[in-house]
Amino acid sequence: MATASIITANDVLTLPELALDGGQTLRDVKVAYETYGTLAADRGNAVLICHATTGDQHVASTNPRTGRPGWWDRMVGPGKPIDTSRFFVICANVLGGCMGSTGPSSLAPDGQPYGMRFPVITIRDMVRAQVALLDALGIERLHTIAGGSMGGMQALSLASSWPERAARVLVIAATGAMGAQNIAFQEVGRQAIMADPDWQGGAYYGTGKAPDAGLAVARMAAHITYLSETSLTEKFGRRLQDRTAKSFGFDADFQVESYLRHQGLSFTERFDANSYLYITRAMSYFDLAEEHQGRLADSFAGSPARFCVVSFDSDWLYPTAVSRRLVHALSAAGAPVSFVELSAPFGHDSFLLDVPALDRVVAGFLGQ
Amino acid sequence: MATASIITANDVLTLPELALDGGQTLRDVKVAYETYGTLAADRGNAVLICHATTGDQHVASTNPRTGRPGWWDRMVGPGKPIDTSRFFVICANVLGGCMGSTGPSSLAPDGQPYGMRFPVITIRDMVRAQVALLDALGIERLHTIAGGSMGGMQALSLASSWPERAARVLVIAATGAMGAQNIAFQEVGRQAIMADPDWQGGAYYGTGKAPDAGLAVARMAAHITYLSETSLTEKFGRRLQDRTAKSFGFDADFQVESYLRHQGLSFTERFDANSYLYITRAMSYFDLAEEHQGRLADSFAGSPARFCVVSFDSDWLYPTAVSRRLVHALSAAGAPVSFVELSAPFGHDSFLLDVPALDRVVAGFLGQ
Repeated sequence: MATASIITANDVLTLPELALDGGQTLRDVKVAYETYGTLAADRGNAVLICHATTGDQHVASTNPRTGRPGWWDRMVGPGKPIDTSRFFVICANVLGGCMGSTGPSSLAPDGQPYGMRFPVITIRDMVRAQVALLDALGIERLHTIAGGSMGGMQALSLASSWPERAARVLVIAATGAMGAQNIAFQEVGRQAIMADPDWQGGAYYGTGKAPDAGLAVARMAAHITYLSETSLTEKFGRRLQDRTAKSFGFDADFQVESYLRHQGLSFTERFDANSYLYITRAMSYFDLAEEHQGRLADSFAGSPARFCVVSFDSDWLYPTAVSRRLVHALSAAGAPVSFVELSAPFGHDSFLLDVPALDRVVAGFLGQ
Repeated sequence: MATASIITANDVLTLPELALDGGQTLRDVKVAYETYGTLAADRGNAVLICHATTGDQHVASTNPRTGRPGWWDRMVGPGKPIDTSRFFVICANVLGGCMGSTGPSSLAPDGQPYGMRFPVITIRDMVRAQVALLDALGIERLHTIAGGSMGGMQALSLASSWPERAARVLVIAATGAMGAQNIAFQEVGRQAIMADPDWQGGAYYGTGKAPDAGLAVARMAAHITYLSETSLTEKFGRRLQDRTAKSFGFDADFQVESYLRHQGLSFTERFDANSYLYITRAMSYFDLAEEHQGRLADSFAGSPARFCVVSFDSDWLYPTAVSRRLVHALSAAGAPVSFVELSAPFGHDSFLLDVPALDRVVAGFLGQ
């Protein structure tokens, strides 16, 4: 309730068209977004927050599908590190998503859902839709663009392709290029979905069936990668779930099994399987250096922005080494960049969880 | 051809019955095994090699299903680290497997395949079947029991429950208890199989359908965990497969995607999905300390064996830390134990691959 009241807008922008990296042009593109706080007269206090793979625009408002607080409620609000009494905060559902922005579950111009007719998009296409949103809001230059995980990739993409649009770029637990292991995990998730007969080549809308089983498996596999081995051990270890002895069967004997099954199942209630395909595809395609003959530093040549890069010591999905590579590239490009590896036990998900040191880094960077 | 010729037996032992940890008794239990070399007159030169999750008895002979060399061909043979001109080497397909030993695809006493009527087994049950094989072969005490991964767990289980049956215990890339992250990955694999409608509650034998799609996804996810991030990066990086540009589609654009799909698909040609369920279940149940109030050292109290424990620095599935815990327990139990962490880039699969340092450790330990 307290969180919902701080929203100043919950709206949908419609773009007549959006040209995509893949060469196609999407028509009638919706961008669902929320804003918090008040845009200053000089329009200099806007902060764009980009969400991660399965996030959404409800950064600090109650999520209408789950009834749970916004995914970064702890970070965004009055008096919080991203202080909505000071900043005008914007968060949009990504292109390809399923929370109001145009994606594979949206209706195509022929009145039928896109399904797999939806074009493959890139991280930059997601950013492109958000740049159009900034144009519509009359924001020429962001005070800060910020994001964790895929959100950090969007921040980097904006810094690279629209360098004048943000004064500060905050990149948390992300990378400048998706690595082989992550591409592999993403492929497993997609194969799990596409192996489900209820996927029906992506044309499951309106059939009363959806590839929930495949999507749940995809989520389970991904979820393991978001947590550290240490946090799984501390949280669950080998403890049994609601029993005193092993069942000698295939029930969820262990708490970690029960937890994972719940994660998989509940995910299917809030996420569209085709969106998962398209968003993970965009991530696996992400490589900022690709257009610069492999020289990541050239992606940021002449950038006027200040950067802050954060990694977590327990994150094995986007480990500190990839952040360090990014920082080296930014330094080589002459960009002012601060870098911190935070100690937190939660693995990749640390950026979403209670890590007070992250709060201080975020507040400090935005206050500069 | 050269490898096949060193086999001295390729046989199947039938046990009238086998009492299991879960309380049930299996009747008419087959144990498919191979032997290499000659058993000495004093029967003191027998080496039992235990295979890993998806391995089989074809340790150094051509695999009849794949036509490929045995899975430890590089380690076992005349003049090799496990020298068949000196040792009598035995390798049996595990109980629950699908290469000739009794498992869920075997016929139950009613003439129909067990399917999910097969009892849930443990690592110790697998060892129990192999102890019966040793009895049948007249081998009272092994010179060495050796294994990597699940094979190492079997070696530990024998050392704990039948301490007089082996003079030397060689444990490579294994653990004394399955950790939460590994239980989680195993659960994902099982859920992928059971989510496949062609699984049909496990009763797919003879229906012309099998849960190949689910089994392939399970294998893909597991396969990632067998490799290191470094080896995936070196082997594949972000290189494209048979194309010069991204397809902007869902084909296997990247080599690592194509490789994984192949791994998944080819696995279904040689492995039974229900066996995968039962074997991973046995692994997740594995905890040597469970019967000793959590004190791992007590599992080896009074053991007369010498131990050698090997880990690999790039193995994140069974990292050095878990081997170290095992070594501490063995030391606390007063067992002579040598421990080495080898540097190898291949991740968990290092125990199967070209790591000359491992050859020297194995040869050295068997020569003691």
